Amino acid sequence: MNDSTARDTERGQPTENQGHVLTLPLEDLQVDREPHRYERWMIAKLLRMAGSPPVRFRLWNGETVEPAEGQAEFTLQLTDPKALLSLASNPNLAFGDLYSAGRLQLLDGDLSDLTETLYRHIHRAMQNWPRWLETLWRNHAPRSTGIDEARENIHHHYDLGNEFYRLWLDQAEMQYTCAYYETADATLEQAQLAKLEHVCRKLRLKPGMTVVEAGCGWGGLARYMARHYGVTVHAYNISREQIRYAREEAKRQQLDHLVDYVEDDYRNISGEYDAFVSIGMLEHVGKENYQALSDLIKRSLKPDGLALLHSIGRNRPMLMNAWIEKRIFPGAYPPSIGEFMGICEANDFSVMDVENLRLHYAQTLTHWKERFDQNEDRVAEMYDEHFARAWRMYLSGSIGAFRVGSLQLFQVVFSHGENNNIPRSRQDLYTSPATPEDV
Amino acid sequence: MNDSTARDTERGQPTENQGHVLTLPLEDLQVDREPHRYERWMIAKLLRMAGSPPVRFRLWNGETVEPAEGQAEFTLQLTDPKALLSLASNPNLAFGDLYSAGRLQLLDGDLSDLTETLYRHIHRAMQNWPRWLETLWRNHAPRSTGIDEARENIHHHYDLGNEFYRLWLDQAEMQYTCAYYETADATLEQAQLAKLEHVCRKLRLKPGMTVVEAGCGWGGLARYMARHYGVTVHAYNISREQIRYAREEAKRQQLDHLVDYVEDDYRNISGEYDAFVSIGMLEHVGKENYQALSDLIKRSLKPDGLALLHSIGRNRPMLMNAWIEKRIFPGAYPPSIGEFMGICEANDFSVMDVENLRLHYAQTLTHWKERFDQNEDRVAEMYDEHFARAWRMYLSGSIGAFRVGSLQLFQVVFSHGENNNIPRSRQDLYTSPATPEDV
Repeated sequence: MNDSTARDTERGQPTENQGHVLTLPLEDLQVDREPHRYERWMIAKLLRMAGSPPVRFRLWNGETVEPAEGQAEFTLQLTDPKALLSLASNPNLAFGDLYSAGRLQLLDGDLSDLTETLYRHIHRAMQNWPRWLETLWRNHAPRSTGIDEARENIHHHYDLGNEFYRLWLDQAEMQYTCAYYETADATLEQAQLAKLEHVCRKLRLKPGMTVVEAGCGWGGLARYMARHYGVTVHAYNISREQIRYAREEAKRQQLDHLVDYVEDDYRNISGEYDAFVSIGMLEHVGKENYQALSDLIKRSLKPDGLALLHSIGRNRPMLMNAWIEKRIFPGAYPPSIGEFMGICEANDFSVMDVENLRLHYAQTLTHWKERFDQNEDRVAEMYDEHFARAWRMYLSGSIGAFRVGSLQLFQVVFSHGENNNIPRSRQDLYTSPATPEDV
Repeated sequence: MNDSTARDTERGQPTENQGHVLTLPLEDLQVDREPHRYERWMIAKLLRMAGSPPVRFRLWNGETVEPAEGQAEFTLQLTDPKALLSLASNPNLAFGDLYSAGRLQLLDGDLSDLTETLYRHIHRAMQNWPRWLETLWRNHAPRSTGIDEARENIHHHYDLGNEFYRLWLDQAEMQYTCAYYETADATLEQAQLAKLEHVCRKLRLKPGMTVVEAGCGWGGLARYMARHYGVTVHAYNISREQIRYAREEAKRQQLDHLVDYVEDDYRNISGEYDAFVSIGMLEHVGKENYQALSDLIKRSLKPDGLALLHSIGRNRPMLMNAWIEKRIFPGAYPPSIGEFMGICEANDFSVMDVENLRLHYAQTLTHWKERFDQNEDRVAEMYDEHFARAWRMYLSGSIGAFRVGSLQLFQVVFSHGENNNIPRSRQDLYTSPATPEDV
């Protein structure tokens, strides 16, 4: 698979992104004095440190700074001198903040393509950065994920209101995690249901089994498992908004006798189950809690049980982008497989299967962003322009990060070390398409 | 899959193992004095430290020490007091040495079942060992795997003579690595060819591609790739005996225009290839060389290329059993996935797929041991009884180790971090059976 499909869809609507930018009250921010020589020098320096990407800067007085090498593919507008200062002093944080505030605007080009291009150039350039610059621009350590902070962290993002997420997530099961595209032309709905099916197959679910889910979002996986595999599920989540939605849906679908949504921290899971599953929670767990998570799975999983953890990850240990960690996902940390293995090695678990779905997440995010763009005015009404721009930045930046491989998506299946009652091969995962025809 | 099949086959021939033992010149070793009280105490203590396995000891004078709990399923004969002393002081090393020397003999029970039972009991018991005992019985660090030592290490094991290996390896391609059993009743030949096919599919080989193989054994994979996928292969190996065999076979099969067997250390690989593959070499590489191996793959793999490493591994970092490392595989070290990731994270490789074939190796070893047992008298003629017993111990002990999960078998597929030209899913690995019908 390559992500050309994704990129083309993005390119399909360049005017729209510009449209949004032009609706801003520029005059409130505009300063029209001449830039000083050190300000022009600073921009040239910034571009060089970023590996000379094909980016043109347009300053507050209309004058432009062209890229040192080649043609500009993107034009970034800086509305005021202070914006330049904060960009130079802490770009990881300031780029998103300035964009959200409308003080850094993309005039030409697509935002996902820009972030992808910047990631590629900076990744190469970083290797030659002086230590002082690395230190100056380093992403800070993520905030704590203790029981109380976790509640705040999750509330900050997942309690924004189900109506907001309904605007751009799939209509099938409100899945806010990576989908599984068996074909390039699968719809978001098909790909999200295919993801649920793929996960159920990896867990080798059979009727009557018991499953515990840590971090269940809006409860879609739990309902899918109950509906299609006849298992009983205890699904944990600390987001009140999501639990409320999940319970209503389960009742509506008459699955509430099989699915129990528990509004509590995963650390309070009790009982023994045939399967332990967690989709998109590990990013919020924090490395300092891996030992505790490992112990939890050890005591929650029956001797023959299988566990599956699905998480955003890295090719090597690296801090989360400062802006994402501070403004979007407080406490978030995507582990490398080596770090992930801390969970498995701590209790002699045997890893059976690791699959990387990186480009599936680029495609998922692209589908989300298409729907988000179509509803952005509605989002601005619900919240404000600043919020809408921040989310456009977050979705576009994530598309870029998965396209360049700054982020990965791992599904890891493991069992107790002594368990010999394990599948002979993975053939059974692929006997029939996971993508439902009828969606 | 569970390994009952394997165990039953073992149980099928208990008398044969005893048969071998009874042919030994016991009288040369026998001492018939009364055991001292401290010697009886030492055996009881040994059994307790080993977690009270269902094992009876028969001493040199015929007197027996029964297990503290339950019925004995195995009877171990100690021919002399010195054997008991060395067993107590360093069981990891002495068990294999004494068995090979005929001074520790299995009178009742099957050797693979015994090692499996001992592993299970000791694994649990170890958690309560006093530190001094852990230190006393610890496995030592593996010997060096520098270029010169590597040559000795490999010569020690792989240059024992192709005739010897032909007695008990598969007749299809002389594969001395884990096979892939799609069905419980697959033959060794079918499973080894299925392994080669599975590996080729994971590498997504296409006609005209170039492949480099690090550690090619008797060259079976390289010939299979050339024959079935029309690729050209440069296959490296430092075992003279194996290279000689591989070249003759390639000529005989008229594949020598596609396959080039290079008698050299993998560290001297040059050129750029569409695929990098290594089956069962990593165990011999040594952790201290992972960075160099990573750098080698980085420069040998084309931008769109895929790499596959197939290796024995662990659920968590652990030293190799002292006897195996000293007598059978000098320098061997099976890594945990966390340690394995050192290779991938060092150069920002993106891991796409990890598969664990642990129980396939238990089945492979069981098939090898059946053939070995049938040819053991021939082996004793070629070498001597001591050698034959050592190899029976090594094969049986390995069956036990894979059954209890003390050893794992990992296949890891990865690419350069920037490569977006990667397979969408693993569906294509399972479109048709990997096991050939016609074997």
